[in-house]
Amino acid sequence: METVRIALLGAGTVGGCLVELLGAHRGRLEAFGYRPELVSVLVRDAGKPRPGIPPHLLTTDPAAIAEADVLIEVMGGTKLAGELVLRALEADTPVITANKALLAERWGELRGYAEAGLLYYEASVMAGTPVIGALQSLWGNRLLELHGILNGTCNYILGRLEAGIPYAQALKEAQDKGYAEADPTLDVGGFDAAHKLTVLSRLTVDPDFAWEEVRANTRGIEHLTPELLDEARANGQVIRLVASLFPEGGRWVGKVRPVRLPASHPLALMGSVRNAMVCRTQEVGELVFSGAGAGGHVTASAVLGDLYRLVSGQPGHLPIPNALPLPDIRVEALEEA
Amino acid sequence: METVRIALLGAGTVGGCLVELLGAHRGRLEAFGYRPELVSVLVRDAGKPRPGIPPHLLTTDPAAIAEADVLIEVMGGTKLAGELVLRALEADTPVITANKALLAERWGELRGYAEAGLLYYEASVMAGTPVIGALQSLWGNRLLELHGILNGTCNYILGRLEAGIPYAQALKEAQDKGYAEADPTLDVGGFDAAHKLTVLSRLTVDPDFAWEEVRANTRGIEHLTPELLDEARANGQVIRLVASLFPEGGRWVGKVRPVRLPASHPLALMGSVRNAMVCRTQEVGELVFSGAGAGGHVTASAVLGDLYRLVSGQPGHLPIPNALPLPDIRVEALEEA
Repeated sequence: METVRIALLGAGTVGGCLVELLGAHRGRLEAFGYRPELVSVLVRDAGKPRPGIPPHLLTTDPAAIAEADVLIEVMGGTKLAGELVLRALEADTPVITANKALLAERWGELRGYAEAGLLYYEASVMAGTPVIGALQSLWGNRLLELHGILNGTCNYILGRLEAGIPYAQALKEAQDKGYAEADPTLDVGGFDAAHKLTVLSRLTVDPDFAWEEVRANTRGIEHLTPELLDEARANGQVIRLVASLFPEGGRWVGKVRPVRLPASHPLALMGSVRNAMVCRTQEVGELVFSGAGAGGHVTASAVLGDLYRLVSGQPGHLPIPNALPLPDIRVEALEEA
Repeated sequence: METVRIALLGAGTVGGCLVELLGAHRGRLEAFGYRPELVSVLVRDAGKPRPGIPPHLLTTDPAAIAEADVLIEVMGGTKLAGELVLRALEADTPVITANKALLAERWGELRGYAEAGLLYYEASVMAGTPVIGALQSLWGNRLLELHGILNGTCNYILGRLEAGIPYAQALKEAQDKGYAEADPTLDVGGFDAAHKLTVLSRLTVDPDFAWEEVRANTRGIEHLTPELLDEARANGQVIRLVASLFPEGGRWVGKVRPVRLPASHPLALMGSVRNAMVCRTQEVGELVFSGAGAGGHVTASAVLGDLYRLVSGQPGHLPIPNALPLPDIRVEALEEA
């Protein structure tokens, strides 16, 4: 049994949920031959209460990372997180991150490490809905186009506008529910979706896909009103913030903007904070993936999924080594025909 | 640049499509540092015409496999394919297979090689719709239940029954369109779906999941009539063949049978030969995946996706090394709001 020493960068909602999940999954990870051990939790402010995190592990000293076999980054932001992620990678320490802003904006520094297999980022797009792994399984396809609802906050606000709630009030509701950030520009300006689209584009069509171009092609939802969504509905349409990757004029273009979708479109059928992606390929035709795209456990489960990939050490499809305890939950009753 | 010598086992529709795709993807595979070279195509009958396959590569001699760095098995069946797959694995040659019957029924012999990372099988369930990769990304979750429409032939026949066509005629149509086998028992008896469910179960909850138990829990669609589907529709339901994995009585149960679904159920919204899977986890809630689940290029693209995984040599998420030529196809026009 080998010990895998984990340094955690950031101890917000996702970090707390991850520590909880690591405990629940200890036996299964050990079945792969690795005993996970959390060795440090690096935070900006060691004085803040951090429920669920053993207090003696909290530190503000970046040197703590040097002791780890893997760095898990759930701090967010591009500066401090970026410096510490790069420091780990320079020391050949694999990094698991949920940070789409970092991946999108500092790719020039990260790309070589990603190509070397040191960077894991399933949680960065659609959180716990595994589209990164799915898209990587589609490399045998010629991609035709990809369209996604990648930001749950915007989807929630648009749903409220449809219910006749004015924009400012809908935004405040999203903030009160913890969906939107205090500075909501990243969400409602479309930049969070643009970060995610940039990550997907480098994974599917071009490792050099430029963040600056996607940013320049990004429009948010601030100008939308209940009246506009009402008028769309009268035409059998819904308005959604959609991130698209498609060929135009001989090159691939990434774009984020509110669009009118027919009410029957797969992306229009998603409720509230759900994320969804439609992609079409020459070989398979239309593929649809949908699920939750934000939340503490939702994101932490994807980070943990990457830890499984990392300790498995194999690119292929392994059987699960052992079962978790059976959930105590009623399943959907299907009536036999 | 390293050459990766490929032996192909079986040269039917999927094999022919794979040879075509290998040609189109040569440059991208080389960007990973590997030059794919097809060294032999092993078939049962070397006299049959094999469009698209270089005739000098055709052989009936199993010794040809010994020359390969990877064996791609798209022959089907559990006997000859099983012997040759095992012979390759015993010699430490990685195997990519689309063969769910082999995986389900001869798992006792294969499991050790799967755990060693030598077995790749994305194409075996839902073909080109990447659920194997997606489910492996969900290991950080506690699975609650999983329900799938995993057999396109049955879905097609059920659609025709809904249109008032009697069972025998609907089956004949499916055979004429090349969906169903000449001996359709594997499809309409539910056993193909049962094979696939067995593969998924070992990947998600129990590496020992027994094929015999799933087989014993399998009922097909032969007893269904247009009248029964009509009566279901009058009750706002549709009848579909659904493969389910769920906990019952303290253990995981795998079951395949026709069920009545509310017309609004995600699995009921799929048309004709489309496959779909709904899974629910404690951490993420409901996830939906849908796409094509059969066909030559559909299946070959997933096999090729596994070849990318294999040559990448990395469990993590790599950026694509270079872009394929832009497709000459009009994309979905979305109207900006």
